[in-house]
Amino acid sequence: MKTRAAVAVQAGKPLEIMEVDLEGPRAGEVLVEVKATGICHTDEFTLSGADPEGLFPAILGHEGAGVVVDVGPGVTSLKKGDHVIPLYTPECRECPSCLSRKTNLCTAIRSTQGQGMMPDGTSRFSLNGEKLHHYMGCSTFSNFTVLPEIALAKVNPDAPFDKICYIGCGVTTGIGAVINTAKVEEGSTAIVFGLGGIGLNVIQGLRLAGADMIIGVDLNNSKKEWGERFGMTHFVNPKEVGGDLVPYLVDLTKRGADQIGGADYTFDCTGNTTVMRQALESAHRGWGESIIIGVAGAGQEISTRPFQLVTGRTWKGTAFGGARGRTDVPKIVDWYMDGKIDIDPMITHTLKLDEINKGFDLMHAGESIRSVVVY
Amino acid sequence: MKTRAAVAVQAGKPLEIMEVDLEGPRAGEVLVEVKATGICHTDEFTLSGADPEGLFPAILGHEGAGVVVDVGPGVTSLKKGDHVIPLYTPECRECPSCLSRKTNLCTAIRSTQGQGMMPDGTSRFSLNGEKLHHYMGCSTFSNFTVLPEIALAKVNPDAPFDKICYIGCGVTTGIGAVINTAKVEEGSTAIVFGLGGIGLNVIQGLRLAGADMIIGVDLNNSKKEWGERFGMTHFVNPKEVGGDLVPYLVDLTKRGADQIGGADYTFDCTGNTTVMRQALESAHRGWGESIIIGVAGAGQEISTRPFQLVTGRTWKGTAFGGARGRTDVPKIVDWYMDGKIDIDPMITHTLKLDEINKGFDLMHAGESIRSVVVY
Repeated sequence: MKTRAAVAVQAGKPLEIMEVDLEGPRAGEVLVEVKATGICHTDEFTLSGADPEGLFPAILGHEGAGVVVDVGPGVTSLKKGDHVIPLYTPECRECPSCLSRKTNLCTAIRSTQGQGMMPDGTSRFSLNGEKLHHYMGCSTFSNFTVLPEIALAKVNPDAPFDKICYIGCGVTTGIGAVINTAKVEEGSTAIVFGLGGIGLNVIQGLRLAGADMIIGVDLNNSKKEWGERFGMTHFVNPKEVGGDLVPYLVDLTKRGADQIGGADYTFDCTGNTTVMRQALESAHRGWGESIIIGVAGAGQEISTRPFQLVTGRTWKGTAFGGARGRTDVPKIVDWYMDGKIDIDPMITHTLKLDEINKGFDLMHAGESIRSVVVY
Repeated sequence: MKTRAAVAVQAGKPLEIMEVDLEGPRAGEVLVEVKATGICHTDEFTLSGADPEGLFPAILGHEGAGVVVDVGPGVTSLKKGDHVIPLYTPECRECPSCLSRKTNLCTAIRSTQGQGMMPDGTSRFSLNGEKLHHYMGCSTFSNFTVLPEIALAKVNPDAPFDKICYIGCGVTTGIGAVINTAKVEEGSTAIVFGLGGIGLNVIQGLRLAGADMIIGVDLNNSKKEWGERFGMTHFVNPKEVGGDLVPYLVDLTKRGADQIGGADYTFDCTGNTTVMRQALESAHRGWGESIIIGVAGAGQEISTRPFQLVTGRTWKGTAFGGARGRTDVPKIVDWYMDGKIDIDPMITHTLKLDEINKGFDLMHAGESIRSVVVY
């Protein structure tokens, strides 16, 4: 069949809207009509050429929502008409990682996904007979796409595609980092570095988890209002702090009889390795945990004095918020439908596929929290 | 009163055995006759001058065992004749850290201890009217010493002082890192870097916790036999590995259907920041935890790519094995008495106080696992 798609022809070039060829689903695969897709920094990271593992030509996009149109042989958990969210982190429920109860990083199709291929090592997308790469196993910048059954979460059919597509990456990453990775308890203190699309979701995850003090840190004062809308209790602009940021934050979080400062949990949502260090070092002595969510540039490294860890701080990271996609994503959709979490205000721009490059422009200009393309 | 002690007169000089003056216990304090003390790398770290927080003149030593001789006003949990192990990490059971259930790093007397003083800000030791600093709140290189009540663990009176003194630091640090900090489960795989006095105790902690694969890494082949004696299942000498150590260890630990290598838990017992990185990076994708136990030189830093954390590895540290001294140390003494753990073979040298500098020489020469001074 033919489908309209925004094709990343080569690194550093705008996406090109065109008709491409799409093969139907093979065994264990599902054809999905994508109804809406978010535009995420990770798409930009790859499109820009900064991602050393980026492959071209490819159909990017990994934050979608849509409807099952057809299923291949052997597919048992999905049928035509089901509403689904594509999962760049699949959940096979059979590999050692899925069975470990310790990680969401399913390994069932890891190697082929990294090569931009379906699990059988081939692509379903082509243009004039030349193959196009899949991207993060999703390729939601195509109106129709094919995914493995294990990479689709079946969700509440009443949920609006143009909002829940964001659960396919940003919402789940932010809220999941709080709930699954940090396991934040009621009454905690927390610091969130970077109040973009991920940081705001970390903030609403902290509100959901019952944190007492939710400090947002951003260089842009316009983010104060954004953070407060989702539960932030204190805002810090590092440019306006006289002196070093870490002692300032440690001081701000002093509690208890011994007046030792530092937050119970800190989250880096910037991808900046200097900020990652600040996040670790502003965690509480004895038990503070710092979670890296942001993706750093190729070759960049984090560092600290080991004394920071020996005195009880823990340094962790998270991918897709530690969420098991098929199990946890439907729950987060339900939380949205029940009003436990908020998404609508974060979708600042809705575009048509023809306007998708404008979504990247808005991201660069810092004007959007999230732009969503509606097919 | 007068007591014999080995005094660290200044950095880089041998200890000097002399009679010093010791004041009796004030409120909340206890006078202890030290019966035996281990000589630990941390004493050497300070004596050498490498410790930027080292204070002189001081009475070093922090790994002791002895008997209560007298108690000051208000002491309720100890009485004359009780057998005790001094705790450089006290346990007041009242400060925010003790009450957090998340750390053993009691803050009750932290600031004065760091200044080489008793909690009231003064020293009990003096020489010719000049004060001598306490060390790590213990000063077990003195035959008699004064400690706060909260810094003494009351232990089984049948236990031999010249063995259980080692529980005052090395044994508890190694076993505790496994049990309290890493919380290793039965069937785990683990790698221990550095098979000295701490590493061997990590190994026996892993055996106690039911680990399946216990890999020891050391540059000295004579440590193979030592490791095996305490439960090590595989030995790796990095000098004999053709190529990089991390891929070798990842390969050695491949298990399960997806054949992804890396250990469930890794422990650095070297204090070398390059090794700390290797320990992190040889931990399993998705859930591997790396625990820093060794103390790095002043100003040294650890580093890695944040991708290592984002893909599920956790970087932690431990101090005193995460043990709450008054609660956990008596249990470890009982484990020794019950034969659940082994200490005797690790005490390779027993010395008199006059020979204490020989203990440091044996450590430098790598000839001892632990030297113990018996008063």
